[in-house]
Amino acid sequence: MARPLRWLADRGYTGRVYPVNPKYGELAGLPCYPGLADVPGPVDLVLALVPAGHAVDAVREAGAAGAAAIVVFASGFAETGPDGAALQQRLVETGRQAGVRVLGPNCQGIVYTPARLFATFSAAAERPLAGSCGIAYVGQSGAVGGSVLDIAAERGLDLTAWVSTGNQADVDLTDIGRHLVRDPEVSVLTVYAESVRDGAAYERLAAEAAAAGTALVVLRSGRSAAGRRAAVSHTGAMLGDDTAFTLVSRRHGVVLVDDVEELLAVATVLRGQPRPAGRRIAAVSTSGGAGILAADRCEGHGLTLPELAPHTQEKLARLVPDFGALANPVDVTAQLFNRGERAFGEVCSIVCADPQVDALLVLLTMVTGDAAVDLAEDLAAAVAATDVPCSVVWLAGQDQTTAARAVLGAAGIPVFSSIAVAARVAGALAPPAQPGTGAAPPRSPVIPTLPTELPGTGLPADQAGWALLDALGVPRPDGRLARTPFQAAEAAHALGGTVAMKVVAPGLEHKTDVGGVRLGVPADRAAGVFAELAGAVADPDGVLVQRMIPAGLELLVGAAGGQDGWPPVLTVGLGGTGTEVHRDLATALAPVTPEAALALLRELRSWPLLAGHRGAAPLDVAAAVEVLVRVGRAVAHWPQLAELEINPLIVGPAGAGAVAVDVLVATRKDMER
Amino acid sequence: MARPLRWLADRGYTGRVYPVNPKYGELAGLPCYPGLADVPGPVDLVLALVPAGHAVDAVREAGAAGAAAIVVFASGFAETGPDGAALQQRLVETGRQAGVRVLGPNCQGIVYTPARLFATFSAAAERPLAGSCGIAYVGQSGAVGGSVLDIAAERGLDLTAWVSTGNQADVDLTDIGRHLVRDPEVSVLTVYAESVRDGAAYERLAAEAAAAGTALVVLRSGRSAAGRRAAVSHTGAMLGDDTAFTLVSRRHGVVLVDDVEELLAVATVLRGQPRPAGRRIAAVSTSGGAGILAADRCEGHGLTLPELAPHTQEKLARLVPDFGALANPVDVTAQLFNRGERAFGEVCSIVCADPQVDALLVLLTMVTGDAAVDLAEDLAAAVAATDVPCSVVWLAGQDQTTAARAVLGAAGIPVFSSIAVAARVAGALAPPAQPGTGAAPPRSPVIPTLPTELPGTGLPADQAGWALLDALGVPRPDGRLARTPFQAAEAAHALGGTVAMKVVAPGLEHKTDVGGVRLGVPADRAAGVFAELAGAVADPDGVLVQRMIPAGLELLVGAAGGQDGWPPVLTVGLGGTGTEVHRDLATALAPVTPEAALALLRELRSWPLLAGHRGAAPLDVAAAVEVLVRVGRAVAHWPQLAELEINPLIVGPAGAGAVAVDVLVATRKDMER
Repeated sequence: MARPLRWLADRGYTGRVYPVNPKYGELAGLPCYPGLADVPGPVDLVLALVPAGHAVDAVREAGAAGAAAIVVFASGFAETGPDGAALQQRLVETGRQAGVRVLGPNCQGIVYTPARLFATFSAAAERPLAGSCGIAYVGQSGAVGGSVLDIAAERGLDLTAWVSTGNQADVDLTDIGRHLVRDPEVSVLTVYAESVRDGAAYERLAAEAAAAGTALVVLRSGRSAAGRRAAVSHTGAMLGDDTAFTLVSRRHGVVLVDDVEELLAVATVLRGQPRPAGRRIAAVSTSGGAGILAADRCEGHGLTLPELAPHTQEKLARLVPDFGALANPVDVTAQLFNRGERAFGEVCSIVCADPQVDALLVLLTMVTGDAAVDLAEDLAAAVAATDVPCSVVWLAGQDQTTAARAVLGAAGIPVFSSIAVAARVAGALAPPAQPGTGAAPPRSPVIPTLPTELPGTGLPADQAGWALLDALGVPRPDGRLARTPFQAAEAAHALGGTVAMKVVAPGLEHKTDVGGVRLGVPADRAAGVFAELAGAVADPDGVLVQRMIPAGLELLVGAAGGQDGWPPVLTVGLGGTGTEVHRDLATALAPVTPEAALALLRELRSWPLLAGHRGAAPLDVAAAVEVLVRVGRAVAHWPQLAELEINPLIVGPAGAGAVAVDVLVATRKDMER
Repeated sequence: MARPLRWLADRGYTGRVYPVNPKYGELAGLPCYPGLADVPGPVDLVLALVPAGHAVDAVREAGAAGAAAIVVFASGFAETGPDGAALQQRLVETGRQAGVRVLGPNCQGIVYTPARLFATFSAAAERPLAGSCGIAYVGQSGAVGGSVLDIAAERGLDLTAWVSTGNQADVDLTDIGRHLVRDPEVSVLTVYAESVRDGAAYERLAAEAAAAGTALVVLRSGRSAAGRRAAVSHTGAMLGDDTAFTLVSRRHGVVLVDDVEELLAVATVLRGQPRPAGRRIAAVSTSGGAGILAADRCEGHGLTLPELAPHTQEKLARLVPDFGALANPVDVTAQLFNRGERAFGEVCSIVCADPQVDALLVLLTMVTGDAAVDLAEDLAAAVAATDVPCSVVWLAGQDQTTAARAVLGAAGIPVFSSIAVAARVAGALAPPAQPGTGAAPPRSPVIPTLPTELPGTGLPADQAGWALLDALGVPRPDGRLARTPFQAAEAAHALGGTVAMKVVAPGLEHKTDVGGVRLGVPADRAAGVFAELAGAVADPDGVLVQRMIPAGLELLVGAAGGQDGWPPVLTVGLGGTGTEVHRDLATALAPVTPEAALALLRELRSWPLLAGHRGAAPLDVAAAVEVLVRVGRAVAHWPQLAELEINPLIVGPAGAGAVAVDVLVATRKDMER
């Protein structure tokens, strides 16, 4: 008998179950009906345990029976090629006509333990799953989902809800997710996402989770080169935009994790504990060595271990022996346990009371048996009295510490067996690092009213970029397009001093790569240089002759328009020809406030070069901020603007401004060509 | 009764045990003697179960009894402060006089299971420890060591040898380690090191391990800022030199790991499998999702997943269903199991036969019960027939796969529960990435015979550096130290063109930080600039007037002399004032061959700027290589040379050479001041 029917019949499903099969009069002890139309009562959900070829009929019949939804388990659809894709399309259309939402096809179904609903084939649901731990799962992959369900259950966490969305022909993981984050039975939603087709839907899910107070933990795959190659041949497509995904997740406090183990670990922590307010962690250990290892690992995950306040250390000194350590990590030494039953909990309470401490990590070594249980009870009491979240790493055999781990688990304190995993989870849970502030608050640029139509539309690519910068009020050097050597000489004389000369040709994006840029050309050499530059490409439009901009720091300012529901993204980085070499970039969702633009600049490794480094004068940060704000506005304002890149933006000394020396623009239409 | 005596008496120690205690006639069923002098037979090893105050006497008596070694368990020595340090010093001196080696004090002793020797207080040794798995442990921390012993034993791996060296007053972990790597019972030595005092001893250990074919796995702590703070207050001192430690480890194939879990995981893998020949890994999964996750994680640890050869993919296509994936990661899909009992093993054999594959990672999801055992046997047979090492990640409850995991374990195939941990271990085991080659083989510079005495000794710091460069044959610009404005003008006129001017003052290391450098000064302005520069510092020696070197790429070339037995280290990086901002550095043990110097340059992110990037002409890589070789020779040749730093070395276009524009030298004597 099919697993779903068996489980629905045997496990106390809270609704009614009607088996449908023309060959049987009874199935699983329930009366069986020849067709959906013969079922006597109202039908909410249909489970289609039929091969692909019968699925379309099942959808039609489900609609006729008044069902709201149908689960199509069968494979043999889009994942198999064009024929399957066509069949899948018919499935969707039939569902739409029949007024039925379709989950799947090629999916593993649904588990919802509060209703004792086990509508799945997953072998992982063979376990009794008698509880409901408040953690839910939704994801495309039934296999990864099965692992999550099974491993969680082995650890005593029976998932509350579990949905495999498969090919997502109709209902996708954001639809399911938005339902689950509102469910009062669910406190943590875990998501495994191979693709998110609709950025806006993902952002709604993230926002609604935050509003409902449901923690959202997302494991996303396919980010590596090999992962992307695999994703092409795997069910589902690549995530639309990695950067936008990450930024949207951060905006709404989504926790992003890297593998199944971390997904479960983070969910377990969030089930019992609040998230830390910052990235400062304190380590308290029974072994100096373990504390040092933990410090190393935590710093590797971008956490800091602040030296505890003198007042805190004074209090600790009354408990911790002289040869221990008080600064952070705190090494209580094994001798602490001779100083009273509650000494360890007291140490932890003192540490958590230090205002610099956002989270506590406790490292235990060979404390085992009854001593371990006493310690666990003491620690649980201490943690219950503080708002600081606490995790434990217990470096001893599981069998030596089973009872003690159970005490901590019941108190909502996660216990790890690996320092590295605990540090990784702590790093994932802490809010993103905030770049320091302290610079003068940036002035708010007055941005001109932007026209509805994208400036420069219809102009050649080269002129379109300058037209756009002019509309935005981003400074650029005086310049003229010369089409003859004589025009070049004329332009150079008119501009005065030496000039920059750049060949202009259709589709030529990186002029220096072809030797198409000359800087510091004297006016009397302009005609000769024109000839050389025009010869560097096959079909030049001409040569741009620009006033030379004095040397400064070269930045790149880029923006990508929103797509597939993802918001636009602004990028700033160290620019010039070294852009790819240095890979010093920072990104934010666009548009940005001046404050956010300044924060973005401060994220750069190169920030000291802007702020004034090693005897150099500070540069015009305010001018760079203005350009970022204006470019961010541009991509947010004109949906047809696909890409805008200024490289380099030459930032001069403070007060001297920032000038866009080269610009690239691509519209949606350009991208489609 | 003390644990060591109980265990020696009860667990079949293969030697003879003589309890010594004046208060008893019998202990643990053995005749007890009033003093060491009263023991009837020869004594090899004394276990001193006495407080700190009696330890010196015990050492003296051990010597008189003819013992080779004594274990001092007591704490209360250097870890407690100056008094304890003095007592420890007496312990060492007494041992030397008495001809007895001392293990400890403040240590947890020794376990050696082949001789049934359990000379420890560690609670971890409460387990029966009946086996001998070939893995040994040595480390300072008894707590971390106890965790290793306990967790390994819970996983069925009874360590063969286990030594806690504590304060290392006499015998340290390299002494123990060198003994253990020669022991035929030991195939893997794991080390936990908080400090290694003697680099030469560590290098001997690493070299002897390699020669003996014993794998060496080292967990080193105290690398983070917080870890270093903790290390100061913890037993033992900081590792002498992080960089030299890492480079020496790499030279001898030591596996460096990051936490206890990884230490054990790596040791388990090395017990059963060879190390991979390179960093190319293939993933084979029963779930597309798990394969993609593994690809992401492996690439995150510097491994590559090469696309499998067309021939390999053709063979796979005969087994793997159409909707699977063949490229790498390989997704066999659950349907593979319908294609015969041996299909999965066959897939793995085909993948391992691909010459691009250095290691195999198998990802299994919900294959459980009997099917899991069949699969494990099939996989074990396939792995036995290949030289390619294989690891498995099983994403299913332990209890569902116990028998199958045992089958794999018996075949020496490690089974992980976490994709991230498996990828981290695979990354740690693979040999370091080799920077690509392909540039012309560098010419071998003819280095002048170096004098025995360090050139420039006795000269002011500023002149000493130039004298050293001259001796090495490293080009530097013509220049003169001017002590008056008039001398500056004279020097500038003599050099011709514009000049660079740099203030020189005792102890002034970063001239640009104080505004002490001017470039491109015309000769007629030199006198005026002299006055400005001389005014920038309190007590100038004068102003160096140098010929201007044309712009080029600015590198930093640094070298640190060997110390505490560690070999000297050569560093190259992107130089100039952006050194700290870009942090683009590569290091090697000195001296270096021209080939190694070129490889070092290729490790830099900035390598494209040297090789010719985005239309720019290639720079004089050969000249940079020559400078690296010469500087590497210098630190290897003159032991009194503590530091040598050229910054910037201006590398011009190919053929134009590389010129050291500024240099810093520090001798050992300078460092001691």
